[in-house]
Parts: sequence; structure tokens; C-alpha cells
Amino acid sequence: MGSLHEESSNGYHANNTNGKIITCKAAVLWGPKEAFKIEEVEVHPPQKTEVRIKIVCTTICHSDLGAWIAMNKEHRAFPRILGHEAAGIVESVGEGVLDLSEGDHVVPIFNGECGDCVYCKSSKTNLCERYRADPLRSVMIGDGKTRFFTKNGGQPIHHFLNISSFTEYTVLESACVVKINPKAPLEKMSLLGCGISTGLGAAWNTADVKKGSSVAVFGLGSVGLAVAKGARVRGASRIIGVDVNPEKFVNGRAMGVTEFVNPKNYETPVHEVIRKMTKGGVDFSFECAGNVDVLREAFLSTHDGWGLTVVLGIHVTPTTLPIHPMELLEGRRIVGSVFGDFKGKSQLPILADRCMDGEINLEGFITHQLPFAEINEAFKLLAEGKCLRCLLVL
Amino acid sequence: MGSLHEESSNGYHANNTNGKIITCKAAVLWGPKEAFKIEEVEVHPPQKTEVRIKIVCTTICHSDLGAWIAMNKEHRAFPRILGHEAAGIVESVGEGVLDLSEGDHVVPIFNGECGDCVYCKSSKTNLCERYRADPLRSVMIGDGKTRFFTKNGGQPIHHFLNISSFTEYTVLESACVVKINPKAPLEKMSLLGCGISTGLGAAWNTADVKKGSSVAVFGLGSVGLAVAKGARVRGASRIIGVDVNPEKFVNGRAMGVTEFVNPKNYETPVHEVIRKMTKGGVDFSFECAGNVDVLREAFLSTHDGWGLTVVLGIHVTPTTLPIHPMELLEGRRIVGSVFGDFKGKSQLPILADRCMDGEINLEGFITHQLPFAEINEAFKLLAEGKCLRCLLVL
Ligand SMILES: [Zn+2]
Ligand SMILES: [Zn+2]
Ligand SMILES: [Zn+2]
Ligand SMILES: [Zn+2]
Repeated sequence: MGSLHEESSNGYHANNTNGKIITCKAAVLWGPKEAFKIEEVEVHPPQKTEVRIKIVCTTICHSDLGAWIAMNKEHRAFPRILGHEAAGIVESVGEGVLDLSEGDHVVPIFNGECGDCVYCKSSKTNLCERYRADPLRSVMIGDGKTRFFTKNGGQPIHHFLNISSFTEYTVLESACVVKINPKAPLEKMSLLGCGISTGLGAAWNTADVKKGSSVAVFGLGSVGLAVAKGARVRGASRIIGVDVNPEKFVNGRAMGVTEFVNPKNYETPVHEVIRKMTKGGVDFSFECAGNVDVLREAFLSTHDGWGLTVVLGIHVTPTTLPIHPMELLEGRRIVGSVFGDFKGKSQLPILADRCMDGEINLEGFITHQLPFAEINEAFKLLAEGKCLRCLLVL
Repeated sequence: MGSLHEESSNGYHANNTNGKIITCKAAVLWGPKEAFKIEEVEVHPPQKTEVRIKIVCTTICHSDLGAWIAMNKEHRAFPRILGHEAAGIVESVGEGVLDLSEGDHVVPIFNGECGDCVYCKSSKTNLCERYRADPLRSVMIGDGKTRFFTKNGGQPIHHFLNISSFTEYTVLESACVVKINPKAPLEKMSLLGCGISTGLGAAWNTADVKKGSSVAVFGLGSVGLAVAKGARVRGASRIIGVDVNPEKFVNGRAMGVTEFVNPKNYETPVHEVIRKMTKGGVDFSFECAGNVDVLREAFLSTHDGWGLTVVLGIHVTPTTLPIHPMELLEGRRIVGSVFGDFKGKSQLPILADRCMDGEINLEGFITHQLPFAEINEAFKLLAEGKCLRCLLVL
């Protein structure tokens, strides 16, 4: 793939790219909502604490879609390489990287874990002081520069969400690279890089759904369906899926959703429908739509006294929470969840093993597969709600 | 006191009022912000599951002030007898009341506990299905009628917050009456009926403040000071009191506040001041001011990743939470707390015992004492921030 990269016929990995610039193909975005251009880019070697990996496959998440649209000015940094759900193989490591080496199978994480800061040492958060997700950052943390450059002219190309996976090679902080079992299928491991871990973890870590509890999931994309799957693994007795697109219900049923509510079919607000169905409301609701009106419905759908709403959706409008302070006194709680509250470096390998063991079944999330060159088609599928995850194979 | 009520000289309690109407003095409010009129009222006997008690003393809480102002139309129900922080003695009980009897020393609670509903049986909430606090209710739950009537003309007088303590006798649901140790000093037990329990419980039950943690309390009235006291009992290492009135700092120090911040002394927002003082923010903040701008400062004063803000203030404006959904993803949480998450009937007797044992010192909260007839003067003291609690003796 990379022009300096070769593999011999006996499978021996002849890495002669170590320390050198790699020229390879990447999907470069030159401006909001433009088509990605597959072009040759230069990927510089990893610096201190950094890792360069060969991306084997990548999927597309709604945050990529958001960055592609780049509605808010602050999120614009072009040219840029997007992508943050992927799996790959370590090509080389920079100075000081001790836990990773060439040939390791890895999953990049946008929400890194240094393991050493006050946050990483706390059991209460997965937000690392230095390597947490930051949608505004578009350069490497170490020196504030990029590792990507255009082949012609050497113009810097910006990074995205600590990862940038729409490229044959990328450079990341080692705190954002998780080593997994080399026997794990990389195309499925890609899913663990964002959406699926986010959904499963929201059910397990953030909400701590218990056996017999009732759950409502607002928005049945990949994240919402992963929440449903996580709730089912925990033994939730009722998992109510809410979506305005009834086509989502087909996948939903397979993922564990037990009942469906299409708000369009009711004249009353959906929280009233759900409260009626559940004698007062569900124990847990999950907002996976990124819409404050949906958020309010999710909040009111829970049982007063103990209901918990977990916010997973990305809210791009400046609208604040449509909840009155006095409504908090009715005992409904609302919390946010980033990357399912997983500490990536320490906990993702275990999740990967549970998936390999078949305890967590990742079938069904990858609904489409396309060659990397057809990335624009893949974006269209996601934007139109026609796929869950479209796998791009590099 | 009551015209039908007599006590013999040997202390024997000759109750010949059982089942009869009692005529006694009450402070009746005839309209918003009017002066209370001390007048004779008729107090009807307790009906099924109800209890009639003789109020020995009562204190005034900010919710009484709120009901007196009655800013929102829905809260207007006149004539009305306010008051919900008190201590008294059972005069008689209605049919079916088995846990209380004549002569019992009691503290009324505005947030009742039936002990039998799905909420009371849950460990996660203290909001009883039937007897929870409801500022809109102004009649008895059983028959939707009042037990108070004007002496001349028999006009119904409305109840307030399940209690109505500004009267020599009142009628309550037994679910709202807590029996306490008869040796406990009633004037201090009155404090446990609302503000002090609310503050102590917010620190203990809602926030579960741990030894060594840092705390910021916004608003140093009785509730805020009780939070500080509760945090000190738990061993919090730093308790930062925030108030624009520096006179509050005198009482604050005695109650456990270790540092004071007067927002007026800074040009930067107070959350920045507190984050600087505490290397990133406090573990817990408590909003006891009932103001959304203060609420936002309290929210931002906590440490990202794990900070918890507890809302105790009563917010009367329609303004919703000034918090963006994405801000929840920084790991700061916000919850409401009613009556300190105490289950009143089951847990208040234990709290009363802890106070009697001296483990919890209630000295300092009652800063003034006046005879019942001077209730208008007592209201003025509270409204002007000149007292913590003014005890009215009946
Ligand atoms: Zn994502
Ligand atoms: Zn860290
Ligand atoms: Zn009160
Ligand atoms: Zn109950």
C-alpha cells in the first residue's frame, strides 16, 4: 500500500519504513461538505511517545459527518483527514513508547488514557488530563504540528480527534492506541473505536443497567443499538426503541430492542406514551440523537424518583438543557457519557476479548462494505440513514 | 391555649377535645404579602389516617417566605395558614392511625412517607407516591377539604405543604408526622422539619461527601450552613462558603466553613476563583440560593470528570438550566435534593437522637426568638437576611 512498504511472500514483515516519511493514499477534506479527494500524502515518522500505524479498515461515525459539515467555525481546520473508528497494525513507534511495537494489532481511541494523571488514576472518570477527546485540536499534542503533508507543496494537513483514520497510514499519541489480541478480526474491532463501545459502555459503566430494569433508547443508529445490546447483556426486561424511521426497527429487534415507539404515530408527546407503557416511566433512558427536544422527551420518559437519562448524542446547536431546576427535584437525573466511560487503554482489550469469546456479538453493525476509494458513497449512506456502519477496506 | 384544651395542675393531660372542634389562635394570611392576622380559627378533628397536633414552637423557612409572596398564581390559595418547620405534641389521632397517640412528641414533615408505596419501598428516593411535598396542594389529601375554618362565617382556610404550623393546632396526615424521643428539646427539633435536615441530608445522602473531599456552598442561610455542618461531620477537608453578604461568614465559621469567597470582591467569575483555589475545582458544590446564575457558577466550580452539584434552592423563575448538553460530557453532574433525601418517618428519629447525643450540634441556627403574636416581625427578619432561624413560641 504505502510506496515504501513491502511485505515478502512468506509473510515476513519487512519494515524498511522506520524513521522515514511514508507516501500513501489518504482521503483529504479540503472544505466543509466537499467531496473527499483521495490523494497521495506524506506521513512523517512518529515523534516522542507517538506511534505510526497502518490502517487496515475504518468505519464512519456521526462525528465524522459532523466534522465534514463543520457547522461551527471553530471546528474548521482544512485540509484535514477525518476518521476515528478504525483498526490497524503498528508500523513503527517513536521514542519512549514501551507498550507497543511493530506488528501489534491495535484499535485507535479518540479519548486517550495516559494512565498517570489525576483523572486516569481516579475511578470516576475516563477523561485523561492530556489525551481526552478534543474536537478543536487538529495538530499533534507534543509539538503542535501535523504529521501529514500534501505530496505536492508540503502543505500541512490537519489531524482529527486524536486519530485521522481515512488514510493508509496515520500517526497517533501512544495514549490513543490500544493493543488487542492479534487473533481478533480487525474489521469488527474497528467498531470498538467509537460507536459500539460508546453504546455498550453507556449501559454498563455510566448507567450500570441492572437485571430486570426498563430502558428507553432514543435514536436507533449504531450507538443506540449498542446501548440496546448492552442493556440486553445486563438482563434488562424491557428495551424500548424510539425512532421516527421505522426501518430502524428491523435491526433493532436483532440487537435486543423489545418494543418500538415511533413518535410520529402518536398525538401525545412520546414521554407520555412511554410512561403509560411502563407504569410511570423507564429506569434508564439514553439520548443518542443529538437533539434537545429529544433530550427532553428522554428525560421525562424516566420514572420520577430514580430515573437516569444518559446523554450520548452530540449537540451542535447552542441550545441549553430544556430542563427546569425544579424538575431535578422530582428525582430524575441526567448525566453525560464519553466513550461509554471506558478507560480505553486498560479496558478495551478486555472488551475485545469478550467480543471474540462471543459473549458480545458484534454481528449486524456492519451493514455495508466498500473499498476506501468509495468513501464519498459511504458518507452518503450514513448521512441518509441507510446504513449502520459502512466498512471501508484499505 | 385552645379554648377546649386544659391541663390540670398536676401535669395530667386532660384531653377532652378528642373528636371535637378546637377553637384556637392562628396566623392567617389573607393575600400575597399581606400582614399575618392573628385570629381565632376552628380546627376540625382529624379524619381517617390523620393526626391533630398542638404546635409548641415553629420556625420560619424561605419556602414560607415564597408562599407569602406567592409570585406564581398557581401558588395562591387564600386565606391560608403557612408554616412547615415545627415541633409539637399529638392531641388526638383519627381512625386507622396506629403508630401515633395522644401526648407523643412529634416533628411534622412536608415530605411524607407512607412506607408502603413503590417509592417508599425503593432505596433510591424519598418521594412518597401520595404524601410527597406538593406546593400546589392546599387541602387534605383524603377528602380534598380543609380542617381549618374561620370562626366567624365558617370560611375554609387553606393548608400549606402538608403541615400549616402557624397555628396552635393543626391537622396532618399521619404519614407527615414523625414521633421523636420525648426528651428531645422541641425548639431544636423544630429545625429538623425542613432546612437543617435538608442541608445535612444533601451532604450525607444526596452527595455522600467523603472524608478529605472539597466542598463549595453557595448561599449561607440555614440550609447552606447545615450543608457545611454535614460536610464537616463527614470530614471534608475544605468547605468554601460563597455569599455576597459578608455578615454570613461569622455564623459560617462556627458551622464548619473553612474559607469564604465573596463574589463581589472579584472581577472574574466565582467559579474561576474556586477552581484556582482548589486546583481544578471542588468535588461537591451545593446551590442553596435559588438563582440560576448562581447555579451555573456552582456547576462550573466543581472539578471536571467527577464534580457533583446538588440543587437545594427553590427556583421560582421559569428559566431552565443554563447548562449546555455538551457540558455534561465533561463529567460534571447535577442533581436535585428534596428534604436531604431523608425518608422522614424512618430516618428522622435517628437524626433526632444523633442531635440529642451531641454528635450533631444544632447550636447557632436559632438566632432569634419571638412570641407567636410577633410573626410579622419574624418574617421581616428573615426577608432582610438578619436571622438564620427565628423561633416562634406558641
Ligand atoms: Zn465516533
Ligand atoms: Zn491521563
Ligand atoms: Zn422549608
Ligand atoms: Zn409512600
